[in-house]
Amino acid sequence: MDALRGTANYQVVKIDGQNVTRTDEAVVEEIPLTIYLNGKELVTMLAAAGEEKYLVIGFLATEGIIQNINDIKTIDIDMLQGVIHITTHAGEIAAEKMFLKRYLTACCGKGRSAFYFANDVLTAKTVSADLTLTPEEAMRYSELLEAASATFRLTGGVHGGALAAAGKLVCWSQDIGRHNVFDKLYGRCLTEGISTHDKVLVFSGRVSSEILLKVSKMNISVIIARSAPTSLAIDMAEELGVTVIGFARGQRLNVYSHKERIVGL
Amino acid sequence: MDALRGTANYQVVKIDGQNVTRTDEAVVEEIPLTIYLNGKELVTMLAAAGEEKYLVIGFLATEGIIQNINDIKTIDIDMLQGVIHITTHAGEIAAEKMFLKRYLTACCGKGRSAFYFANDVLTAKTVSADLTLTPEEAMRYSELLEAASATFRLTGGVHGGALAAAGKLVCWSQDIGRHNVFDKLYGRCLTEGISTHDKVLVFSGRVSSEILLKVSKMNISVIIARSAPTSLAIDMAEELGVTVIGFARGQRLNVYSHKERIVGL
Repeated sequence: MDALRGTANYQVVKIDGQNVTRTDEAVVEEIPLTIYLNGKELVTMLAAAGEEKYLVIGFLATEGIIQNINDIKTIDIDMLQGVIHITTHAGEIAAEKMFLKRYLTACCGKGRSAFYFANDVLTAKTVSADLTLTPEEAMRYSELLEAASATFRLTGGVHGGALAAAGKLVCWSQDIGRHNVFDKLYGRCLTEGISTHDKVLVFSGRVSSEILLKVSKMNISVIIARSAPTSLAIDMAEELGVTVIGFARGQRLNVYSHKERIVGL
Repeated sequence: MDALRGTANYQVVKIDGQNVTRTDEAVVEEIPLTIYLNGKELVTMLAAAGEEKYLVIGFLATEGIIQNINDIKTIDIDMLQGVIHITTHAGEIAAEKMFLKRYLTACCGKGRSAFYFANDVLTAKTVSADLTLTPEEAMRYSELLEAASATFRLTGGVHGGALAAAGKLVCWSQDIGRHNVFDKLYGRCLTEGISTHDKVLVFSGRVSSEILLKVSKMNISVIIARSAPTSLAIDMAEELGVTVIGFARGQRLNVYSHKERIVGL
């Protein structure tokens, strides 16, 4: 079997009851990527191969280091070394310093919820899109996501996410890291000028607070996940105006927050 | 329904085909925990409630900040504020500074593999246990893990991990974060004096390189996962002497590295 891009074949012993077979099996490739921002080492990320440019752009945008694609002067990707050099027009900016030292900030005035990083307070915004959708549309998007995920079925090792509108997936990313899926999607939207406020996000994984913050920073009002949300994610979703749908599989789904966007409820 | 410890009930609209029901549903609780080390803010972690002391001890140990439980002078946990104060006998030590600035270090001299953080080079060690097990034992441990995971079945929101030996689970942890599961397990072993080299680790999630490093730092020679490994995790496992078993479900499993520990192969 030839390896897909982003996968590598490994010799595996497969055991099924009493059957023992030796075979080559596709495994998802995981690579370390170090980002240098204006000549200074910023962070090392672990990611699945592919969409590296989108990953770093989306990461810088959700961290508040860039506001839009025009803030970037140059991007130089050296995949052999696993190094990405980025220069920005702003040079060394406040956000870059803030990134290295994050503060616990309970700013919401509500009991259960908390924005725990200062940067999130600056970049998370309340989403107020008047988008609505039917349960059937949400179920359909979840099925389309599942159908699109070739590497997942091959390797079992990645999460997938997509933006969807008008009954179709508009763009699609996958990664071993749940966060990376969102950064790749956002980086692609910023690069290609794809609007986000008029689309829903479909996701294979669990919705934790970090995922919810990324959704709000992308100005997306509906997330449809095949897995569960956490309590903090639901609390934040209520405050930030995001509709959270979980366990969207087959004919089923659960709506956890801002249910007014679901037609017929 | 009363909420389990570590879960909270939320009002949910459940849609199943044409059926719409409004109900309270258990959701896994996610809380931010900020660690202060010797008076200085070190990191904010997001975790499931429970086992907070084990989490922070295991985290400090795998980061190389403490070597064993005796390095800790005091632990003060304030769950209301989500703050944990730890003091160590060493005071401000090298590892603490290293934690904040991690370096890309390709030190293995092999093409595919890389130890990307300096701290990992110091604390990851080659595992050389002469432990062996049969495929049936591995399958049995995977089933025991699945059976133990009450919160997972209730909320769908957590990963579980356990140490196992002699046909039984010895200790067990769960969390929304894959890494946190390992830190909680390790912290418990250090605290209670549970040996690790003579046990295998069973895990519900995917085995990425970060997970593999934690396994090696815990001096554990076999990981049995219900999900897939990544390429980098397998490469590191070969170098560090760890047996990686993936997709251990029902009567099936795949062996990816150091197959000599599996009886009958």
